[in-house]
Amino acid sequence: MLDRYYLENRILNFDKSYIVEGYTIAGPKENDGRLHATFDMALKDDMFGQTTFERAERKMFEHCISGAISKANMQTRDIDYILGGDILNQNVSASYACRKFHCGYVGLYNACATYVESLIVASSLLQSGARTALCVSGSHFSTVERQYRYPLELGVLRSPMTQWTVTGVGATVLQSEKDDLPKVTRGMFGRVIDYGIMDINNMGAAMAPAACDTLVTYFERTNTKPSDYDLIVTGDLGKLGKDILIDLMSQKGYDVSDNYADCGAMLFFDDQKTYQGGSGPACSALGFNALFLSNIRQGNIKKMLLVGTGALMSSTVQFQGDSIAAVAHLVEISR
Amino acid sequence: MLDRYYLENRILNFDKSYIVEGYTIAGPKENDGRLHATFDMALKDDMFGQTTFERAERKMFEHCISGAISKANMQTRDIDYILGGDILNQNVSASYACRKFHCGYVGLYNACATYVESLIVASSLLQSGARTALCVSGSHFSTVERQYRYPLELGVLRSPMTQWTVTGVGATVLQSEKDDLPKVTRGMFGRVIDYGIMDINNMGAAMAPAACDTLVTYFERTNTKPSDYDLIVTGDLGKLGKDILIDLMSQKGYDVSDNYADCGAMLFFDDQKTYQGGSGPACSALGFNALFLSNIRQGNIKKMLLVGTGALMSSTVQFQGDSIAAVAHLVEISR
Repeated sequence: MLDRYYLENRILNFDKSYIVEGYTIAGPKENDGRLHATFDMALKDDMFGQTTFERAERKMFEHCISGAISKANMQTRDIDYILGGDILNQNVSASYACRKFHCGYVGLYNACATYVESLIVASSLLQSGARTALCVSGSHFSTVERQYRYPLELGVLRSPMTQWTVTGVGATVLQSEKDDLPKVTRGMFGRVIDYGIMDINNMGAAMAPAACDTLVTYFERTNTKPSDYDLIVTGDLGKLGKDILIDLMSQKGYDVSDNYADCGAMLFFDDQKTYQGGSGPACSALGFNALFLSNIRQGNIKKMLLVGTGALMSSTVQFQGDSIAAVAHLVEISR
Repeated sequence: MLDRYYLENRILNFDKSYIVEGYTIAGPKENDGRLHATFDMALKDDMFGQTTFERAERKMFEHCISGAISKANMQTRDIDYILGGDILNQNVSASYACRKFHCGYVGLYNACATYVESLIVASSLLQSGARTALCVSGSHFSTVERQYRYPLELGVLRSPMTQWTVTGVGATVLQSEKDDLPKVTRGMFGRVIDYGIMDINNMGAAMAPAACDTLVTYFERTNTKPSDYDLIVTGDLGKLGKDILIDLMSQKGYDVSDNYADCGAMLFFDDQKTYQGGSGPACSALGFNALFLSNIRQGNIKKMLLVGTGALMSSTVQFQGDSIAAVAHLVEISR
């Protein structure tokens, strides 16, 4: 047998993952926020002409996938694989949207880390012979609120630690063919980390330790430091979670206070009363495709880390007394 | 811009995906079935010493992951990534089991096609620099029944088209280092196919068209035919679904009646009253790791196709009037 007992090595290297285009759809509240006018499409009504919130979410996925394919100057038959997910039970928004597209479908679930997860898996598929891939992820405030927390009609008062689940979907088209485009150069999936947080209204505190573990492991294994990157971005830690991550990183000897942003924390204005900011898989998908991608193209960002953060609990494990397990996945994106 | 408008190409080729070891845990009813004495571990009681069925399922995942790592003569730190999922809401069995292992976690959801999905994604990660990966998938009759259908206490009569959700977990350890081992040589993710089946008790009929689409596409694109393989195996179509697939394939000009088996259809004896046989992500994970892997090693099978089949609906879309969308993923495994 071979010599085993090496320490695990989770860094994946990609040289065939080029970002062709990104596309975003945002809900009305999101479009009134800080990223106003950067989205490709904004809803005036979050029902989107459908009879249920779940169908509205699905229609957003369908429009976002079509929109991304068109914007990339491709047709559906040019897309080998669609990868993605959402946080409804059984990933139904992504799955059922894919009925309309004759592309291979790879369903992923890592809660709000799914968008970054899909970028890593897609880059690996491109490395293994796929020519194109479309990554898609999103959420809808009203479907999520009633699935994970309370019926909307109940009008439950929100705690000051809560975040607002973002209504929106973001998609990215990748290709393996070399071109003068931004690229995904490295990826790393994080470990499942559980710090014992029980408060379902404080996801930032549950996810920050996972983001810290992933970032520290990545810096150690690649022998890099925060200042080697123009920007480090997390998905949806929110304002409180962002502060916790800065503290945790500082305890580990890394200063990220200068070049670190969180998509959840930056989406809304303070007077929009989302308390700690946005959450949900839409956060990183909207933040990256609506804001950061164009900055990479314009040369304002040469190299960045995007860290998707996900809380992995379900209502059932929560009712059965489990704490909130979390995970964070990372990609390095360069011009 | 580049010349686009090519037809999608979904065949992935792998030359770094070696199957080191497989490990299986089966429930009591499954261990009384046709695969008796081929499992690495069998439960006497499907509560597995836990207070809830959900925790029993999670414990099965934990034991199966540990068991596979030990049987592969490795330690946890030798495993770069654990990939997998289950069909509980938010994939909690796989996610929460991974709290105990300091490996990167890749959560996947394609219902009962998740095991084959994990083999394809893992092979892609090995192609991109990972050295080892562990694929795990499973289900538990009692957690699934109460999540998707009825409370167990209700004692609802089962329809003759139903299948029995299999209690069990299967895991496979893969490595990138060349060795004299069975290998995953090709992979292809299927499209989402919906033939309008509304009957939640007839999953075989909903999933067979997806399996047909994937197999036909694969044979066309690789210029092969069913007789080029010693064996073609589907996940959990059950007896009725298996017959439907044979018919559908025959309509497309492919005869699979000679060398085709379905894991769900073969797990139980007729007098175990499962009607159409087993279902659930455990089917293909148990079937492959308990039965086919050793036959590949012994040279009885030189080349096989394993097709994971998944029904993608949730209770919510079902209540909202949607039909059952399905997907099927395929791997080619050779000695």
